[in-house]
Amino acid sequence: MSSIRTATLLMHCPDQPGLIANVTDFLSGFGANIIDLEQHVDRAQGVFFMRVNWELEGFTMSAEALNEAFEQKLAKRFDMVWQLHYDPRPQRMALFVSKISHCLYDLLSRWQAGEWRVDIPLVISNHETLRPVVEQFGLPYHYFPITPENKAEQEAKELALLKQHEVDFVVLARYMQVVSPQLIETFPHRIINIHHSSLPAFAGAKPYHAAHARGVKTIGATCHYVTESLDAGPIIEQDVARISHRDSIEELVRKGQDLEKVILARGILAHLRHKTLVYQNRTIVFS
Amino acid sequence: MSSIRTATLLMHCPDQPGLIANVTDFLSGFGANIIDLEQHVDRAQGVFFMRVNWELEGFTMSAEALNEAFEQKLAKRFDMVWQLHYDPRPQRMALFVSKISHCLYDLLSRWQAGEWRVDIPLVISNHETLRPVVEQFGLPYHYFPITPENKAEQEAKELALLKQHEVDFVVLARYMQVVSPQLIETFPHRIINIHHSSLPAFAGAKPYHAAHARGVKTIGATCHYVTESLDAGPIIEQDVARISHRDSIEELVRKGQDLEKVILARGILAHLRHKTLVYQNRTIVFS
Amino acid sequence: MSSIRTATLLMHCPDQPGLIANVTDFLSGFGANIIDLEQHVDRAQGVFFMRVNWELEGFTMSAEALNEAFEQKLAKRFDMVWQLHYDPRPQRMALFVSKISHCLYDLLSRWQAGEWRVDIPLVISNHETLRPVVEQFGLPYHYFPITPENKAEQEAKELALLKQHEVDFVVLARYMQVVSPQLIETFPHRIINIHHSSLPAFAGAKPYHAAHARGVKTIGATCHYVTESLDAGPIIEQDVARISHRDSIEELVRKGQDLEKVILARGILAHLRHKTLVYQNRTIVFS
Amino acid sequence: MSSIRTATLLMHCPDQPGLIANVTDFLSGFGANIIDLEQHVDRAQGVFFMRVNWELEGFTMSAEALNEAFEQKLAKRFDMVWQLHYDPRPQRMALFVSKISHCLYDLLSRWQAGEWRVDIPLVISNHETLRPVVEQFGLPYHYFPITPENKAEQEAKELALLKQHEVDFVVLARYMQVVSPQLIETFPHRIINIHHSSLPAFAGAKPYHAAHARGVKTIGATCHYVTESLDAGPIIEQDVARISHRDSIEELVRKGQDLEKVILARGILAHLRHKTLVYQNRTIVFS
Repeated sequence: MSSIRTATLLMHCPDQPGLIANVTDFLSGFGANIIDLEQHVDRAQGVFFMRVNWELEGFTMSAEALNEAFEQKLAKRFDMVWQLHYDPRPQRMALFVSKISHCLYDLLSRWQAGEWRVDIPLVISNHETLRPVVEQFGLPYHYFPITPENKAEQEAKELALLKQHEVDFVVLARYMQVVSPQLIETFPHRIINIHHSSLPAFAGAKPYHAAHARGVKTIGATCHYVTESLDAGPIIEQDVARISHRDSIEELVRKGQDLEKVILARGILAHLRHKTLVYQNRTIVFS
Repeated sequence: MSSIRTATLLMHCPDQPGLIANVTDFLSGFGANIIDLEQHVDRAQGVFFMRVNWELEGFTMSAEALNEAFEQKLAKRFDMVWQLHYDPRPQRMALFVSKISHCLYDLLSRWQAGEWRVDIPLVISNHETLRPVVEQFGLPYHYFPITPENKAEQEAKELALLKQHEVDFVVLARYMQVVSPQLIETFPHRIINIHHSSLPAFAGAKPYHAAHARGVKTIGATCHYVTESLDAGPIIEQDVARISHRDSIEELVRKGQDLEKVILARGILAHLRHKTLVYQNRTIVFS
Repeated sequence: MSSIRTATLLMHCPDQPGLIANVTDFLSGFGANIIDLEQHVDRAQGVFFMRVNWELEGFTMSAEALNEAFEQKLAKRFDMVWQLHYDPRPQRMALFVSKISHCLYDLLSRWQAGEWRVDIPLVISNHETLRPVVEQFGLPYHYFPITPENKAEQEAKELALLKQHEVDFVVLARYMQVVSPQLIETFPHRIINIHHSSLPAFAGAKPYHAAHARGVKTIGATCHYVTESLDAGPIIEQDVARISHRDSIEELVRKGQDLEKVILARGILAHLRHKTLVYQNRTIVFS
Repeated sequence: MSSIRTATLLMHCPDQPGLIANVTDFLSGFGANIIDLEQHVDRAQGVFFMRVNWELEGFTMSAEALNEAFEQKLAKRFDMVWQLHYDPRPQRMALFVSKISHCLYDLLSRWQAGEWRVDIPLVISNHETLRPVVEQFGLPYHYFPITPENKAEQEAKELALLKQHEVDFVVLARYMQVVSPQLIETFPHRIINIHHSSLPAFAGAKPYHAAHARGVKTIGATCHYVTESLDAGPIIEQDVARISHRDSIEELVRKGQDLEKVILARGILAHLRHKTLVYQNRTIVFS
């Protein structure tokens, strides 16, 4: 999984017999050796979903040619919504942070250790708090204080910066600001957020306080794509940790942060590996 | 834990120094050998919580005498809310069911295998569906069909039956009816329900359908005491199971039922062992 | 997943390009609508694994004809090891038990509730202990006491009974006897055992005692296919439950039994759905 | 739990009635307000275990005086093995590392973020690999290459350094060297190791390779105190993560490292909070 170069095709379309044979025939014709294929039909909706991953070694077609041929020969015919990923360079991930550091440390550490094939061209924040952490890791830190008055203007500058750095996707690593529709439209299903509860429970502000007040026995974390509905975007990954009546709110926060780090990292990795596909506000996460 | 006879004291009161020493001194004075004591202070609220469990062998005081002495010498002085449990006979648990059988089978099997120290004097249902299951296990089955018109009358009969059978607590093992305030008042914090979601997410009807529609990655189950607020009573136990986009609603139901059985059984066992204490809609569950 | 009739093909072979296209072309040629296909290549070993599941409605070929055609046109050519499952009738599962009842109750309850598409033609035991449980569920119970002297003879009778009842696979639901090589050869990768530890830890007798002595913080259960090496067969499913220093051995047993029931049921269901494929003492479990 | 100063008493002794009353009477006499007490008796062994945690505000006795008085009035009389922890300064934790960075990053990040009340006076390694990571966090890095010839000499230098820095306990954060008996004797139950399997499964080298070969469905991590028996010391914390047949050894390593970080951190925190007590190679971990 690590060293070889592969390409990935993600797709969905109305179900009908022969789809797999048509797609795999097509790829085999250009020398593709498929190493991972996962397909299923949502029978209630009549929709076909598939992810195909094949070795680039021995594959005789360029990304451009493949895009063109696939569109002409298959996508139009079967009414497919599809993405092709060749990844000639590491994907470029921008981080947005505020004042809380645990997710930031975790992501910077994974990046510096080379755990994932990813670049972090910049970190953006609405506070100066975490500048020393980011600069210690040798990365550029951009400070954009946000007020109701300057919000639109500042976000336009952020967006320009993201484009200038050729950012592929954005991670809100406990960024305590609602992002603008413009940013969301520019990066559709490419802004990843971590929410500190198991959604839909405790959406909104201060979920650990709400969890403590309700007396729950588990706390959760949810990694999801950002849409215009707050905390309601398609879920990529989520899980819970057990707590007890002895846990104060401070303890919930502490236990929750360990969970947030892991859940956010898993969600990002699924995205990086092109294992996610959004369909009607649900995320298919291939295994 | 299994064979020896023990007594249990559960209590809470305003915190002050010396509480543990006073209570343990008192018990030691009558020969109690404490085998399990768990205490903690909720500092945010200034409340002291404690559970003490001691061997009855060698203990020189009857339940009645202890009740009287504890009230006079300690409870009044420290403003304690407390319960004493001697359990000279197995507790008597009534089951309420409707049409879904998995929790019922699980509880009847545990009872017949002698897994817990509990008696089941009767099973009550608003349908005839599960009569064969209950009678196969040799237990009496009482059928009370409920309509808006007869609800009050039927529940009065059920209540009379519960009293006649000296029932200690009631388990709603997927009973699909809201129980009356009268029943709840008669068994305060002694009616245990299993809800098929991780509350507060997906309270109310059809939680698996709602979970599927939201595209969550975990489903849950919650065991809680019934109060007059629907699905809002103090939580005893809850947990989740992982699901994927491939799971249809039928699969969610199937995976969820395995979880419901385990969570309900854990909640009942905590109650049977006098490990639960409700304080302001939260359940302390001693370990 | 529940109501429609499907067929399943499981296979592995040396990897080479074009395998998926060849198989799916072949099936499409006879009208198969594939609803679930999962494939991957173990690159370290160069082996291709695949499971294909398609609707039988609209599929124009009988099981016999398909078997013949697949062998001739594909299996020989690509050196495939493969199985085809049409399941015209529910699979027939025999249970072996000794004196411990929790897994037995769980399986009989699932069977009686119609949770799975399976028949249980008989239960075999080396003790009389659980006869009342089995007969209460209306199933035949066969008692074969085993001594070193009569073991071979008794197992020959058991085997005859299994054949007479057209048993498809055997579940050792806490059967406390080593089964004979002859039985294992007759049901290759079709005898399922539940071991009360997370193998390879605590193989052999009394795993809960060993776990307690070692002071572990989790206990486990493992569902695996039986091979001639004790507790060393291919693992289908396993998981753990958290315990603490407060748990006596009796408590470990109690907590472990809840886990055993769930893990065994999951393993059996994977087998029933033809989601398992054994390769070199490892079990592929398709999702 | 966070801001107030507390003291902690950990103890075990032969069980007899009156122990709790005697200890809590004694502490109350000097104004202790106990905020957390957990006690239990191991009935199989007849041993009494207790942890008492009380506020230092209002407590009238110094650590020295308390030590003296407790020994004279209680410990001798009841044959107690006990520890008293006042923690006037943060505990001092030394890290030992080799070439693998994930646990190191995680611990340095927690330290720099002030998550725990702990100081890290130095990091020791048998390789130069991780020097840049440690120095980036502003901490001293000491390099002691180890060969069979110089091992004793180098470890003597390490030990001198630990003493000079007044180190309270040592964490082997994936340190790939067996530590000497001398180091273990100097820090009895104060050297914490993380092993990358769920012990006792896959003790020794290359546990992920062994797990892959056995075809397990979960991988684990274990945090334990180091004793002279390799990978056999008292377990503080352990847990598992689910894997599948699709996971290569590289994937097992990746998933396992996320688990190692969390399990090691939980084990260290239990130690820092004086919640651990070793008795006969088992660790009591108070809740």
